This record gives sequence, structure tokens and C-alpha cells, in this order.
Amino acid sequence: MEIEVSQEKLARALNVVSRVAVGAKSTLPILSNVLIRVDTGKVSFTTTNLDMAVVDYVPVISAKDGTITVPARLLAEFVQNLPRGEKIKLTVDGSKIKTSAGKYSSTINGAAADDFPELPGIDEKKAVIYRMGVDEFKVGISEVIIAASGDTTRPALTGVYFNTDGGSLFVAATDGYRLAEREFISKVQSEVKAIVPTSSLQEVLRSIPDDANEIEILFDEAQVRFRVGEIEITSKLIDGTFPDYRQLIPKDNEIKVSVERDELNRIVKMAALFARESNRAITCEADAEKGIFAVSSISNEVGENKSEVEAKPTESGKVKLDSRFLMDALNVLEEERVKMEFSLNSAPVLLMNENDKKYRHIIMPLNV
Amino acid sequence: MEIEVSQEKLARALNVVSRVAVGAKSTLPILSNVLIRVDTGKVSFTTTNLDMAVVDYVPVISAKDGTITVPARLLAEFVQNLPRGEKIKLTVDGSKIKTSAGKYSSTINGAAADDFPELPGIDEKKAVIYRMGVDEFKVGISEVIIAASGDTTRPALTGVYFNTDGGSLFVAATDGYRLAEREFISKVQSEVKAIVPTSSLQEVLRSIPDDANEIEILFDEAQVRFRVGEIEITSKLIDGTFPDYRQLIPKDNEIKVSVERDELNRIVKMAALFARESNRAITCEADAEKGIFAVSSISNEVGENKSEVEAKPTESGKVKLDSRFLMDALNVLEEERVKMEFSLNSAPVLLMNENDKKYRHIIMPLNV
Repeated sequence: MEIEVSQEKLARALNVVSRVAVGAKSTLPILSNVLIRVDTGKVSFTTTNLDMAVVDYVPVISAKDGTITVPARLLAEFVQNLPRGEKIKLTVDGSKIKTSAGKYSSTINGAAADDFPELPGIDEKKAVIYRMGVDEFKVGISEVIIAASGDTTRPALTGVYFNTDGGSLFVAATDGYRLAEREFISKVQSEVKAIVPTSSLQEVLRSIPDDANEIEILFDEAQVRFRVGEIEITSKLIDGTFPDYRQLIPKDNEIKVSVERDELNRIVKMAALFARESNRAITCEADAEKGIFAVSSISNEVGENKSEVEAKPTESGKVKLDSRFLMDALNVLEEERVKMEFSLNSAPVLLMNENDKKYRHIIMPLNV
Repeated sequence: MEIEVSQEKLARALNVVSRVAVGAKSTLPILSNVLIRVDTGKVSFTTTNLDMAVVDYVPVISAKDGTITVPARLLAEFVQNLPRGEKIKLTVDGSKIKTSAGKYSSTINGAAADDFPELPGIDEKKAVIYRMGVDEFKVGISEVIIAASGDTTRPALTGVYFNTDGGSLFVAATDGYRLAEREFISKVQSEVKAIVPTSSLQEVLRSIPDDANEIEILFDEAQVRFRVGEIEITSKLIDGTFPDYRQLIPKDNEIKVSVERDELNRIVKMAALFARESNRAITCEADAEKGIFAVSSISNEVGENKSEVEAKPTESGKVKLDSRFLMDALNVLEEERVKMEFSLNSAPVLLMNENDKKYRHIIMPLNV
């Protein structure tokens, strides 16, 4: 095997794939390696952690067929330190790979490709395929991923649920205390119900090249593949049933408030400072008569706090919320004004952008 | 006590002093508080961790005399969240402080100022005083602090040694394996020998306001005070004897090399990747005949590496160095070219900028 490639292209590819490679102290040391494969002149770099795999197809100057695996992070760091514009030659010599570039050379010990565990392939002819803009993908996933659970005893809640309903593809996530849902693509032809691990989605978000426009998402029964630019990320799906979340979304909360997002974020942050001993609980209060929305918190130890913003609540009433959940939601809401809807009878609180109705964020009130 | 002050001025001062305040779980809880004092209209904010204290004199709109102490970080975070341009009113009510600013208000529980431990003062009339430009101070301290030790069993080595010699003030630090020295001020009148804790110097570096030009340094027998802008940082000195380091600085190393700093940094970083199992040892080799300087490393496990830069060594020879120490030194050397001097007989290695001879960095070679 022999590859001639520019430093920029090689460094970019190794940067993407080396993140998925497992640390060198793994029980299966080959998982810390990158599989380099040249097959009829096509060059690919692959890493896997057994739950997901990333393949980067790298345009090269020239290549001769062959395979090897070498420690991914070491090679990535070596190549990153080489000067931009340098032409790099990678040559396999037994189980070693030699890199030479101008006055810089190294020999890295590797291992044969035979032992490298690859994920099962996806039969793309039978797969359900969606295509969408990269920007909408990034925004939508970032908006819902924050509501996913970190609790591995309930695996279904640690993922993002891709599901079709009424001809649209939705993504949703919930940790049992809050729920986020985004209508992802309208008017889709094929149906899907699949839970994608958040760790895989985070890797996809990090790997999307700056110049990519479109992302392709392919599902089979057990796996999902994201294809963007020269990168392919394949991940196992989470085996489990996602809760029937649509029934949790409140439809007729009587108290509706519209407030400036930055100002609400500011006063929630201030109230959170005084809520550290009280499980982060803060009180939100709509006063229809005064036309204000107030946020307050009390702590026996440190003190108390109250701030107001102008609003035109439809009714008066109050609700206690976890300040961190509220801040998380306000961080992903992107319009200048946001809507908050709640009720006097402890129904879930709904947060939305003022205009874009395709994103909904629901937080359960606290009963303290 | 009552203070009216702009959000910007109060936030800046609290940001500086709250860093020195100790975490709330300290055995002496009042150390997590800031002492707010108004004395004949002059407003000061003070925190201390018993080893050092910082006082910030804040220009205010109006003030009535009095004192209180309140949790420093809570007040700092609250004020930081208030809008810029807001006018803030702080009012003491018993052991509480009320802050009000527009539609934002809070009450923070505090404690009387009587129990707040203050550092002994410095008799400024008897103190040794130096003045210097803020930029030179920042550069010089940053250059030497990297060589200080983290080993608290040898307290003298955990500080920076301010010492006069031949009419100049020098700063120096060493951990026993490397040594850095900067001539700080030439032609000084008074003499000093004092070891200042690195933690105090780091706090001074962080606290220097962007618009400050001059820093004043005052020493008495047991303490040092740094005064810059409206801020005063007072620190205990380290009680101990700093090694007689000047005898360690090599004077006649026969192998002299001049190399481009960025290029040397690059190849040392690459060699360091292969030196992780070998105590970070890399080999530096001057070849006078070929006119090159080469850096290499070998690891049985991961592989090997060699890179060269152009140089005009005065002699040929090689030396083994700790790659991290070399990278640390190269990070603070600031000229385009650097000089390295070493010897065949394991003498300490000297690193300098090509032109500025007032900074010297010495690294002990490895005998591996």
C-alpha cells in the first residue's frame, strides 16, 4: 500500500476519524487504530468503537492498493504538526507505516487489517432514505438532544427518536422531566421509527465539513447511516420503545405569556443563583393585571431575589420550574421573543419560539 | 452603608476580587465573603485566602460609610447578569445587603465585618519600591513562572525569586530540572531578595486591568504588594532560601545553534509524540558538516521519528532533553530565531532569544 496525499486533506480526515477511535488502554487495542484501505485506488480511513463507525473517503494524489491499521491519534497528531502544503507519502512496510514529508519522517508500528472489527453494512437498496439541508439538521438535532437522558438504565431515553407522523419526519427526545420535539422534514414518503444514540449524533454534528450542504440519512432495521461530504457515519440503533410522547404535549394551557428571550434568560439566571439549595427551583409568575412576568427564588441560607419583565399574560398564575431546564430551553430557542404556556393545574409547561411552531419544548413543573 | 455604582465598575471589581475568595465549603466560611467597606466616602472591596489579599477601590456615584461582608461569588454572578448601563444601589440592612437595579432586586445574607481576617499592612514608608511597565511585567513573569516547581515539600522552589544583582532587579524560578531568569529592571537603587508565591503572581497577572500602564511593587520583610490601577494585591512571601542559581548558568557551551523557533517547536512536538513511553526523552543533534539540527525519538512500542531543520551549528554533538521542558521554553521565547547552546559533557543546555539577552532558560540534559 502506498498513498500520496496533501497534508490538509489527510489532517482533516484523521481529525474526524480519530475522535471515534477508542483510547489505547481499551481491552481491544485495535479499536484505537484507524483502518487505512486502498481499494482499486479509492482511499478510505475507518475507525469504530463497535457502537458506531466512521469512514472518511480521502481524495489523494496517487495510491496503490493495500490495507493496514495504525494508532489513530498518534498518526493524526503527527500529521497535524506537519506544515500545511506539504505532500505526504504513506508507505506500508510489513506491519509498519512509514510517513515521509520533506525533512520530516516517521515509522509507526501498526497491525494487520484482518483483526479490525467492522460494523455490518447497510443494504442501501432496502434502506429508508431521507435527505435534508445540513443547517436544518444541525439546528434540529441541537434543539432536541438537550432533552435526552444520560441515565443508561433506560436506554430508549438516551437517544433521539426519529419518527414519522402525518407525513412528516420528527425528531424528539425526553428524559422524563422535559421533552423536545422538532418537525424535521415535511412531506416524506417513507415511514420510520428509530432511536439514534445521542453520542452518535454528537459525532455527526462534530464531523460535518464546513462546506457541506446536504446530509443523507439511511435507516435499516438495526442501523442508521449519515452521509455528508466524504464522510459516512454508521451507528447501531437503540433497541427499545420510545414513550408515546405526543399525548404529553399540552394543548390548552390557559396562561399564555410572550417575553423577550434574552431578558427572560437573564432573570432566570439570576434567580438560579439563589436556587442552589432548593433543587434549582424558581417561581415564575404571570400577572395579567400589571402586565408583567416575574421570576423569583428564595433560599434560607443565601437570600432571595425577584425580577420582572414586561409581558401581556392572558391570565394570572404561577408555576415552579427547574431553573436549569428553563435555561437549557432558552439557549436553543432562537427568536427574539418566546412564548410560554402554563396552567394552574400543574400541566406541563410549553415553550416555543414566537413564530416558528415546528419546535416545541415541554418542561414538567415542580411540586415543591 | 449605602453605595450607588454603575454595573460595569461593580462587575469588574467583583470579578477581580471574587477569584481570591475561598470556596464556600472552607473551614473558615467568612473567607468566601467579600468585605465591602465605605470609609469617608472611599469604597473598597476586599477578599483574602489568608496567604494573599486583594483590594479593589471602586469609583462610585455616591456612598455612605459602613461595612459588611457577603458571599463574593454570589454577589459577583448576580451583578454580572445585570444589564450594562444599569445603576445599582447596595444598601445594608442588619446583616443583609439589598441590591436594587431597575426591575431586578435581591437580598443577600451576609456577616458583620468584625470577623473578617485582614492581612497585616505594609509600612509603605519603609518598603522597597519598584515601578515598571505593565507589559514588561507580564512578559517577564510569564517567562519565568513556567520553571517554578509544584512540589510543596520544597517551598522555596514554588515561588519566583525577585533578587538584585549588580544594580539590576532579576526574577528567576527553578524546579531543579530547569531554570528561567529575566533581567527585570536595570539600574535599581534598592536591593531585595524575596520569593513570591507563583499563585499570587498568577492572580496579579489575571487582575491587571486592560488600560493599566504601570505597576508598583512594594516589599517589606515578610510581604509584597502589587499596585496596579485601582487594585492592590498583597501576598505573604515564601520563607526560605532560594538556591544560588547563577552558578548553574553555563558560560562556555561549545555547541551553538541558531534555529527558527516555530520550526524547532514543530519538530519537537512531533518527536514528543513518540517519547511518551521514554519519559518524554528526545534526542537533539547538531551536525556542523551538514549544517542541520535534527530532533528524533524512538519507542519500541509505537515507532520512531526524525526531523531536521537548517542551522549552522558551531560544532557537532547531541543531547537528550525532556521534550515538555523544551516545548515550554519555546512557547515563551518570542523572537523569530532562537539560540541553543549545549556541550558534549552533559552541561546544562541554554536557550535564548537570538537578540534579547535578558532572558535565559536553562534545561538539565537527561542521562538516559
